[in-house]
Amino acid sequence: MRLSQNFTKTSKTAPADEIARNAQLLIRAGYIHKMMAGVYAYLPLGLRVIENIRQIVREEMNAVGGQEVQMTALQPRELWEKTDRWDDNKVDNWFKTTLKNGTELGVGLSHEEPIVDSLIPFVNSYKDLPVSVYQIQTKFRNELRAKSGLLRGREFMMKDLYSFARTQEEHTKLYEELAAAYLRVYDRLGIGADTYRTAADGGYFTDKFSDEFQTLTEVGEDTIYVDEQKRFAVNKEVMNDETLQKLGLSRDALVEKRAVEVGNIFPLESKYSDALGLYYVDENGERQSVIMGCYGIGISRVMGVIAEKFADDKGLVWPENIAPAKVYIVQIGEAARVVADELYAELMAKGIETIYDDRDERPGAKFADAELMGIPYRVTVSDRLLAQQQFEFTSRKTGETELLTHDALLAKLN
Amino acid sequence: MRLSQNFTKTSKTAPADEIARNAQLLIRAGYIHKMMAGVYAYLPLGLRVIENIRQIVREEMNAVGGQEVQMTALQPRELWEKTDRWDDNKVDNWFKTTLKNGTELGVGLSHEEPIVDSLIPFVNSYKDLPVSVYQIQTKFRNELRAKSGLLRGREFMMKDLYSFARTQEEHTKLYEELAAAYLRVYDRLGIGADTYRTAADGGYFTDKFSDEFQTLTEVGEDTIYVDEQKRFAVNKEVMNDETLQKLGLSRDALVEKRAVEVGNIFPLESKYSDALGLYYVDENGERQSVIMGCYGIGISRVMGVIAEKFADDKGLVWPENIAPAKVYIVQIGEAARVVADELYAELMAKGIETIYDDRDERPGAKFADAELMGIPYRVTVSDRLLAQQQFEFTSRKTGETELLTHDALLAKLN
Repeated sequence: MRLSQNFTKTSKTAPADEIARNAQLLIRAGYIHKMMAGVYAYLPLGLRVIENIRQIVREEMNAVGGQEVQMTALQPRELWEKTDRWDDNKVDNWFKTTLKNGTELGVGLSHEEPIVDSLIPFVNSYKDLPVSVYQIQTKFRNELRAKSGLLRGREFMMKDLYSFARTQEEHTKLYEELAAAYLRVYDRLGIGADTYRTAADGGYFTDKFSDEFQTLTEVGEDTIYVDEQKRFAVNKEVMNDETLQKLGLSRDALVEKRAVEVGNIFPLESKYSDALGLYYVDENGERQSVIMGCYGIGISRVMGVIAEKFADDKGLVWPENIAPAKVYIVQIGEAARVVADELYAELMAKGIETIYDDRDERPGAKFADAELMGIPYRVTVSDRLLAQQQFEFTSRKTGETELLTHDALLAKLN
Repeated sequence: MRLSQNFTKTSKTAPADEIARNAQLLIRAGYIHKMMAGVYAYLPLGLRVIENIRQIVREEMNAVGGQEVQMTALQPRELWEKTDRWDDNKVDNWFKTTLKNGTELGVGLSHEEPIVDSLIPFVNSYKDLPVSVYQIQTKFRNELRAKSGLLRGREFMMKDLYSFARTQEEHTKLYEELAAAYLRVYDRLGIGADTYRTAADGGYFTDKFSDEFQTLTEVGEDTIYVDEQKRFAVNKEVMNDETLQKLGLSRDALVEKRAVEVGNIFPLESKYSDALGLYYVDENGERQSVIMGCYGIGISRVMGVIAEKFADDKGLVWPENIAPAKVYIVQIGEAARVVADELYAELMAKGIETIYDDRDERPGAKFADAELMGIPYRVTVSDRLLAQQQFEFTSRKTGETELLTHDALLAKLN
């Protein structure tokens, strides 16, 4: 991306009504545009981060047999009445709308019901299971307040996978495979070391725990108790002696931490499948319930968490795998322009995503933008450095700077 | 994709209330699931077709400098009041919803207003233009009737690009570049030969024509008059002597055809930019209006058009570039299973997307499914053929069958 062609610009200030640090930074860096509280549009740089996160999640879901679909936002009332989740007194964050003929519709806040409904034509026999189906889709939730930027939106992007098993044993196997896949996702997103599988409340239709994935951060909304040896944690909401005993954890090994939830997985038993009429016939011709699990990762929430967790006083700091580009070229001077043009072409040809700051701007403004945007590696190409046949290479994360020859630079970036 | 692992199945019948042929076939082949009239979920095969169309459109928009963003579905009232498009008496197909605090919101039926709004922080000077911005997003339209399957949905996927120019000349240049990009899109989608740029009504804020892209089909909704030599057509709605004179067309060269619209592009003048306060300051320090164009392709509509246009009495027939897979392997017999396994692995390793029918089904059922699903090339691997070291290769489009050795088969598919 040549910055001279990119329509967004950085800004020294965010909208006065934006109080979430993640959104402030993302707006200032030109990644997102605020439409209203909790509703953000993605500009080119922001959409690249979303797409990078989405692709990592997609690959890991496919790797454990997930089949990708896309459900709809518009939802028929009847489907949600079957599970008793239509009434606004039961589920209090619906957005609802109305067809011309007066029929009330829901605007998808979750997708258990339509996913189960879409499986009914295909699942009859024990031979049709197990199945895991997922989508990466927009969710709409009518939150009373939406002040956390991308961390809790009224419209946000989510990956939700649903597993369908014949027995509890089969369910548990799928559930553990998915839990392991989640840890791989966080590793690839650059937050693996600080992310813990965390026992949490299972909700009202199971006596099991659910599992949250919590990422340590000072500004986290949650308190968790971490066993660093076992790489496992307990959410404060279920922290008691009975829980510790069930999980085989010792209070002495636990450390209290602030954290933010970046994913959660739930055993659903057969609540939704039974209510919607999804059954299978077993080897003996008997009708049986289908055991479900659901597995969510808020794609845009994760983007907000990572933005906020790694940011410093100069701006964003993206992990390499999800950064909108790996390299930011700062061109200073006219002789340097020719060399910078060549370097940009060379890196792009090698598949190294690069932002090329070819604008007619002061060097200081270019350096500040590179930092605010949080691109992992800055390469400065200046007339002065070229006289010594050198490029300046700076890591955004450490701030360390090296002078490198062309070949050493390429070796570093490969 | 191994069919034994895929959760969808084909069906001999579509839902009784589904009267559109495109949707009937796509439901029967397991590509889509009907949630309600005009609202369809995409199952794995259908999502692959959508993704293939989306990728072709994306590449061609990028090639003419389009910058990808993603606007939101939820829309604030104030923005649409500025352009007088909020009132249900002015725009009659809004879905609206309400925040907890009683504030009414729109559910995005189009995105001129938010796109212009998102550009305001970035466009000030003549140096900031021209710009082309696009998204591939869901649109919601409260259609009174929705009986055309994917051709006219209440919730559907659209690519919409908006161009912003300093002058009419600059606008015209962008507009013609986009028109040319559209023709490349249709070529790659496999409908280039039958798709014509077609003059149509420009709407109420320009005295220019708009341009539709119309694909010939017997069941088309529109009547157009085609000049096959000039590869240009006129929509019946603007067909008169004055139009022909403006366009330099002769009535004698025109042939009446049935067609269906697969895209349209509009000059918007400065209606939206002026109303929303997007201006630029020119070289002389004078404030100037921004000239806009908008450019739409209904991604899901195009999928429906192509499904319906090419289908025959055996089912779907996908053009190779957008088919969910290029090859469908039919395995018959147990010795054949080993060879079919190897062939599947070999094709996938070469990046040739393949559906492998490894199910425990009768050969006739496998052949029928290959045809209903419309996969371009069927390869039959049977014990009988293997005795002669041959594979049967059948084109879905022509029905022609050849017996090929392994090497000849690979050469054919490469």
